Amino acid sequence: MKHQIKEAKGKLGVLMPGLGAVATTFIAGVASIRKGLSKPIGSVTQMGSIRLGKRTENRNPKIKDFVSLASLDDLVFGGWDVYEDNVYTAAVKAEVLDRFMLEAIRPELEAIVPMKAAFDKNFVKNLDGTHIKEGNRYEQAQAVMEDIKNFKEKNGCDRVVMVWCGSTEIYHEPAEVHMSLAAFEKGLKDNDPRIAPSMIYAYAAIKLGVPYANGAPNLTCDIPALTELAKQTKTPIGGKDFKTGQTLMKTILAPGLHARALGMEGWFSTNILGNRDGWVLDDPDNFKTKEVSKLGVLEDILHPDENPELYGDLYHKIRINYYPPRKDNKESWDNIDILGWMGYKMQIKVNFLCRDSILAAPIVLDLALFIDFAKRAGMSGIQEWLSFYFKSPQTAPGLRPEHDIFKQLIKLENTLRYLMGEDLITHLGLDYYEGILEAQ
Amino acid sequence: MKHQIKEAKGKLGVLMPGLGAVATTFIAGVASIRKGLSKPIGSVTQMGSIRLGKRTENRNPKIKDFVSLASLDDLVFGGWDVYEDNVYTAAVKAEVLDRFMLEAIRPELEAIVPMKAAFDKNFVKNLDGTHIKEGNRYEQAQAVMEDIKNFKEKNGCDRVVMVWCGSTEIYHEPAEVHMSLAAFEKGLKDNDPRIAPSMIYAYAAIKLGVPYANGAPNLTCDIPALTELAKQTKTPIGGKDFKTGQTLMKTILAPGLHARALGMEGWFSTNILGNRDGWVLDDPDNFKTKEVSKLGVLEDILHPDENPELYGDLYHKIRINYYPPRKDNKESWDNIDILGWMGYKMQIKVNFLCRDSILAAPIVLDLALFIDFAKRAGMSGIQEWLSFYFKSPQTAPGLRPEHDIFKQLIKLENTLRYLMGEDLITHLGLDYYEGILEAQ
Amino acid sequence: MKHQIKEAKGKLGVLMPGLGAVATTFIAGVASIRKGLSKPIGSVTQMGSIRLGKRTENRNPKIKDFVSLASLDDLVFGGWDVYEDNVYTAAVKAEVLDRFMLEAIRPELEAIVPMKAAFDKNFVKNLDGTHIKEGNRYEQAQAVMEDIKNFKEKNGCDRVVMVWCGSTEIYHEPAEVHMSLAAFEKGLKDNDPRIAPSMIYAYAAIKLGVPYANGAPNLTCDIPALTELAKQTKTPIGGKDFKTGQTLMKTILAPGLHARALGMEGWFSTNILGNRDGWVLDDPDNFKTKEVSKLGVLEDILHPDENPELYGDLYHKIRINYYPPRKDNKESWDNIDILGWMGYKMQIKVNFLCRDSILAAPIVLDLALFIDFAKRAGMSGIQEWLSFYFKSPQTAPGLRPEHDIFKQLIKLENTLRYLMGEDLITHLGLDYYEGILEAQ
Amino acid sequence: MKHQIKEAKGKLGVLMPGLGAVATTFIAGVASIRKGLSKPIGSVTQMGSIRLGKRTENRNPKIKDFVSLASLDDLVFGGWDVYEDNVYTAAVKAEVLDRFMLEAIRPELEAIVPMKAAFDKNFVKNLDGTHIKEGNRYEQAQAVMEDIKNFKEKNGCDRVVMVWCGSTEIYHEPAEVHMSLAAFEKGLKDNDPRIAPSMIYAYAAIKLGVPYANGAPNLTCDIPALTELAKQTKTPIGGKDFKTGQTLMKTILAPGLHARALGMEGWFSTNILGNRDGWVLDDPDNFKTKEVSKLGVLEDILHPDENPELYGDLYHKIRINYYPPRKDNKESWDNIDILGWMGYKMQIKVNFLCRDSILAAPIVLDLALFIDFAKRAGMSGIQEWLSFYFKSPQTAPGLRPEHDIFKQLIKLENTLRYLMGEDLITHLGLDYYEGILEAQ
Repeated sequence: MKHQIKEAKGKLGVLMPGLGAVATTFIAGVASIRKGLSKPIGSVTQMGSIRLGKRTENRNPKIKDFVSLASLDDLVFGGWDVYEDNVYTAAVKAEVLDRFMLEAIRPELEAIVPMKAAFDKNFVKNLDGTHIKEGNRYEQAQAVMEDIKNFKEKNGCDRVVMVWCGSTEIYHEPAEVHMSLAAFEKGLKDNDPRIAPSMIYAYAAIKLGVPYANGAPNLTCDIPALTELAKQTKTPIGGKDFKTGQTLMKTILAPGLHARALGMEGWFSTNILGNRDGWVLDDPDNFKTKEVSKLGVLEDILHPDENPELYGDLYHKIRINYYPPRKDNKESWDNIDILGWMGYKMQIKVNFLCRDSILAAPIVLDLALFIDFAKRAGMSGIQEWLSFYFKSPQTAPGLRPEHDIFKQLIKLENTLRYLMGEDLITHLGLDYYEGILEAQ
Repeated sequence: MKHQIKEAKGKLGVLMPGLGAVATTFIAGVASIRKGLSKPIGSVTQMGSIRLGKRTENRNPKIKDFVSLASLDDLVFGGWDVYEDNVYTAAVKAEVLDRFMLEAIRPELEAIVPMKAAFDKNFVKNLDGTHIKEGNRYEQAQAVMEDIKNFKEKNGCDRVVMVWCGSTEIYHEPAEVHMSLAAFEKGLKDNDPRIAPSMIYAYAAIKLGVPYANGAPNLTCDIPALTELAKQTKTPIGGKDFKTGQTLMKTILAPGLHARALGMEGWFSTNILGNRDGWVLDDPDNFKTKEVSKLGVLEDILHPDENPELYGDLYHKIRINYYPPRKDNKESWDNIDILGWMGYKMQIKVNFLCRDSILAAPIVLDLALFIDFAKRAGMSGIQEWLSFYFKSPQTAPGLRPEHDIFKQLIKLENTLRYLMGEDLITHLGLDYYEGILEAQ
Repeated sequence: MKHQIKEAKGKLGVLMPGLGAVATTFIAGVASIRKGLSKPIGSVTQMGSIRLGKRTENRNPKIKDFVSLASLDDLVFGGWDVYEDNVYTAAVKAEVLDRFMLEAIRPELEAIVPMKAAFDKNFVKNLDGTHIKEGNRYEQAQAVMEDIKNFKEKNGCDRVVMVWCGSTEIYHEPAEVHMSLAAFEKGLKDNDPRIAPSMIYAYAAIKLGVPYANGAPNLTCDIPALTELAKQTKTPIGGKDFKTGQTLMKTILAPGLHARALGMEGWFSTNILGNRDGWVLDDPDNFKTKEVSKLGVLEDILHPDENPELYGDLYHKIRINYYPPRKDNKESWDNIDILGWMGYKMQIKVNFLCRDSILAAPIVLDLALFIDFAKRAGMSGIQEWLSFYFKSPQTAPGLRPEHDIFKQLIKLENTLRYLMGEDLITHLGLDYYEGILEAQ
Repeated sequence: MKHQIKEAKGKLGVLMPGLGAVATTFIAGVASIRKGLSKPIGSVTQMGSIRLGKRTENRNPKIKDFVSLASLDDLVFGGWDVYEDNVYTAAVKAEVLDRFMLEAIRPELEAIVPMKAAFDKNFVKNLDGTHIKEGNRYEQAQAVMEDIKNFKEKNGCDRVVMVWCGSTEIYHEPAEVHMSLAAFEKGLKDNDPRIAPSMIYAYAAIKLGVPYANGAPNLTCDIPALTELAKQTKTPIGGKDFKTGQTLMKTILAPGLHARALGMEGWFSTNILGNRDGWVLDDPDNFKTKEVSKLGVLEDILHPDENPELYGDLYHKIRINYYPPRKDNKESWDNIDILGWMGYKMQIKVNFLCRDSILAAPIVLDLALFIDFAKRAGMSGIQEWLSFYFKSPQTAPGLRPEHDIFKQLIKLENTLRYLMGEDLITHLGLDYYEGILEAQ
């Protein structure tokens, strides 16, 4: 039975804390696509299709033709940053995109100027912000809410979503102040230093019913206080950490090796990157947040507890190296020591010459469109079906996250099928073979 | 509802045409596992587990504990080869396994002596067999049936299965003689040169109701004549070509890139290997059979027809190079040219230091156990749920094969769940989130 | 004692048969360097320095400041091609250089229009030339000589050199017609099909005393007829085959492994490239010429005859694969199986993401300048000291070529030192250590 | 003129501080070679040959046939270690060599038992020694001298050499106590904590005129106090740090790229290894010593000061990662960002699957034989001609070390030629070409 979903009418505002390499690549991309200068490759909502019904029916519509999503022409962009560069200038400095392309869309980009950021240098030691909100945490939250309302009104938006595109904050564990909405709101007023800037944005958004997706490994909305608020305001939320590059590859490969019951002794992952993200992660406290986000992946896919003979001795190590010559063109190198029949050793090496922001930008787009869709479909709270996009998916308390990208994909697709009243796909397919199974 | 499946009682004979590197590694492995000297790593039937019910139920039995499979202790081995070396000698010559390990199981291996092979040098030019059956194709087929019956009786087997572990034959298209059982049986009597030796074995097996799995890319039972026979004798069959090494990696990676709607301009695959298989494939006619088997994979996963913007220009090239220094330790190198957001180019390189026979051996085991299981479950004809193990899965006529290893895995697992009366898994999982979806 | 060398005064004409990717990249590079838009990186004559005297003297002049070479400002370019595109158009089609850069030097490039080529499709099956000289081989040779004289006069050149930048011709062995000048000149008149087009150019150049360097693996001037002519006309010549990419790496690595007495079991080299060169080499007859040029390298460095225990079983295999997605951005992958102490096996893998024409262009420059220098220094015949630049260095009959790039470099540098009256470097250096050696 | 060199008669004792993976692999190798079970691959003294005279003379004797070196049959082994395992047990624990091979030479190895070590945990925090000399530094030095004399006498040695095969000590700069022999000897008596254990061994050896080679990056004999002592006692010394694996590759590749005047923006080197060396280097203080040793290499080969346009912005980064799955089978991965013609970017990636001790063992052998040879040839003090074997060659004060392995090789070979009265090789070779150079 098809679920009722409000149509995507009118403009959708996409607000991003952090107008750096990722956000500017996303905005510039949409601008260039609208002009027919490029294509939204890597975006599942725009380019992906979904199989419906039986294999022999040949029904494979594009996802954007299957469910009602905001059109690229209806998107409006805004955001906050600790630097005051407009999006054109920030994109030039990021050195991700061809200068030639940027010139072709310069006016659209120059028109987007960041609002002052909520910032606390204790959370990102390697950045020096100059374009910063005054006041304590409570006042900053109020100011962000004002920003959102003004943006919506000024741009005539029907709806607004928020996607975090800022830096990785330092590692911290959830504390008492994060455990309930009441404690959190008191903490804001007390300017509690354990409330990270990213939480201020998330609070402001969720309080206003604005769907929120978290592109960094920061705790942010993965705390009881904010899931409680999301339920109250019926707001969809999702996180954490855009799944790009090396972790993307890991959640592709590991399920494949696990599928075949191949053992694993070690997985060594190293990265070189020279962008602002690399520079922030050169600080050990910030790296730890990222490391925790990246490390969990293998354990949740391989289940060493259930398969001690295959994965009990797995040694998993991750290194990120700041290496300026490459700028945004991140390169990863993985070595995987696997075991086969009778314990014989084999090795897999994967060398990925990727582009950090190029991989992240379409995720920003998809998340913006899907959390808006979720809201229109009447969904609220943690959107586990969007795990597909995250390194460290936020789940219900006590529920083991699913990192296998293929299970995440089925979850996403079957959720869409379910909402649209289509049959779920199980790949059983015995019905293609008449008489394959003897009657009993 | 649980389906009725006969219990796996008594001995199961595993007969293999081709007692070379793969078959001897399989046999030696089972012998060493029985003695506790090694473990059946890479075998899904032995080491793999299957999730049942909801995630929170924590039901993850081993597959061998979930469905009734023949125990390793009940297996008996036999086979045919164009050389008369016993399994110990053949294993020593194959140089796959440690000599130290082979000595520990030498008596078991020496006891297994190949029967004379059905052979035609026109199909494998680089081999010179000396241990060969006399007579025309019809007489050879009769002789193979006699071999099977004698083996079963002599070894007191309750059931027998056959798994092709021989060489790749030269490329040929299905001809009239393959189009019906009647034409085929006439062709046998006429000693029609278009009937490949592998077809003689398959015919003999299927005629006797012995389940048959095809580990090479040869046509063999993927012809109307033999699928017709399989229906007649209610025999499960499956093929083609064990999915190991490079193609295994390809069917892991390609679905991942496709999932994310990343474009692809080129995929270049090269291999070096120095075993008998490498030597056979050094002949262009035999290489072509393998190439066709390997090339189809990407097209069926990426669907360039449905995604011309992403995959319309894909250039896919495969090279296999005979390189003696490596012997059975095959190494593959893949370069993948992918496209991301706005068409930016990225590269993935995968270097797999694998071991050909080590990857193939557990597939022989799993197929032997699963086609025996299929037979006991009353299944017959093409077993598409075993696609998971094949480079070029045999399907019903007109049905596009599924190469995505993750869809193949779900198909396999949901088939087992279905037969055992368990819920199929769809990964929807909305029920973990109370109130996530507004009532309508 | 310093040798007498004429000063490099006036213009130097650089004539190239083949105005494709390499030649246009060379010409465009010089044009952009003259305008200060880029730097002659990779050119030893422009960027390299040479140590003179003792280490403690700190005398390391640039080579261009040490010996008298034509200045980049004095170069004039011309050439022949089977297509009539001017250099700008040809460079755009080659897709080697940024379009932005090409626009900045467009007028200079457009002004250079190819002369009609001497061509015979039998020697390059995959090319279809349309801009071709009439007449038999003798008449073509006369026409090329006319072209050279006209070019020199029209451009007011003081001197002219010729560097072959055309395609690889099919493999052929030297025949009787190549064995003496008399036979060769008779062959020209008889239009002997064994005289390759490249030989016509070389003959014309050498006949006029124009120094000739051969950038392809073609036989060309490596035949007795033309070395005889070179002696007669006192003309410096050199070849064969610009040493770029994979062979460059091979002649760097192999000497290093040999230096340490490490053994070698196998070296597997594969390439992917998608430019016109790749397309020409997709024909087996043309590939063979290249293969022979590339294969000799290892044998001459490792001397398996003298070191059978280390290199007696070496298996060396080279593959070149036409792979359009990469165009001129050639990529090589090498796997080297080496042996260490007690025969333990190790592996080295080298993955070179190079650019074919970018590596070749500065070699064209250096060779043009050095063969002109050789002529002014009174040197004639085979210039073995330029081996440094060639995959398959031409040497005196019976003399084993030196492929070790470091020996080639010393040979080049010590030749320059010798001509300029500087001490040859031997790296003995005992004199830095007073009293290190007891008096006897 | 040939220099006078004493013949290598009688037994040569090879004493090693540190009987771990490297030393035991060296000893086991020599034992197996003596029995004809393996070959001294990787040893230049045993397998390398040297060209004498002109190319056309074809004189290429093995080095061991050219100069008088101790024969493998005349070597006797001994050493010190902080653990009391005999060489057999230590080799088994090191897991470098096949167990099968070790059993074949077990008695010889078991007979070699370490003497008590001079040790100070402050210099190697990750080791816990139990087999340690008592007393202050002076007393330890006396004890080591006693050990040497006893060993020599007990084993009937004609001569003794010492090669450091122990761990990397923490980083420290030379202090006053290292600046003169007088200060150093006073420091020993005062038990000065700045005198590292490795210096105690070196002092003891040099004091007795025993040649000393330093296989670790420790300062040891690279201090004025000990070079002064070496002169006094006419003792050859050399160091620092065996050149194996990644640095070996670096000093092969970098000279090649420099030879061609290719630019370089970055060189990223990472390693994974799981042996005791990896564990020691997991401590940042010990890693620093190794890092300094490894970092200098590129600067000294590329001379960024002289070539700022090519190497002025070079970013060089080295990482060593403890990764237990690999044990002694170290793997390195290098990424090199190079620049070619007009500044176009290219990349080289080198993946070396090496074996740490297998590469080091033949260096121990060569150094032992060559420093003994040097002593017999009347050479004393720093032996720069042995730079070929070291990551960080010790030179005369103020003299820039030569890291280019090819210059190091010529230095080594020309030193041997010089001592034996052969012509030095300059690779000029104009004399092969009669009349190449016009008479003046």
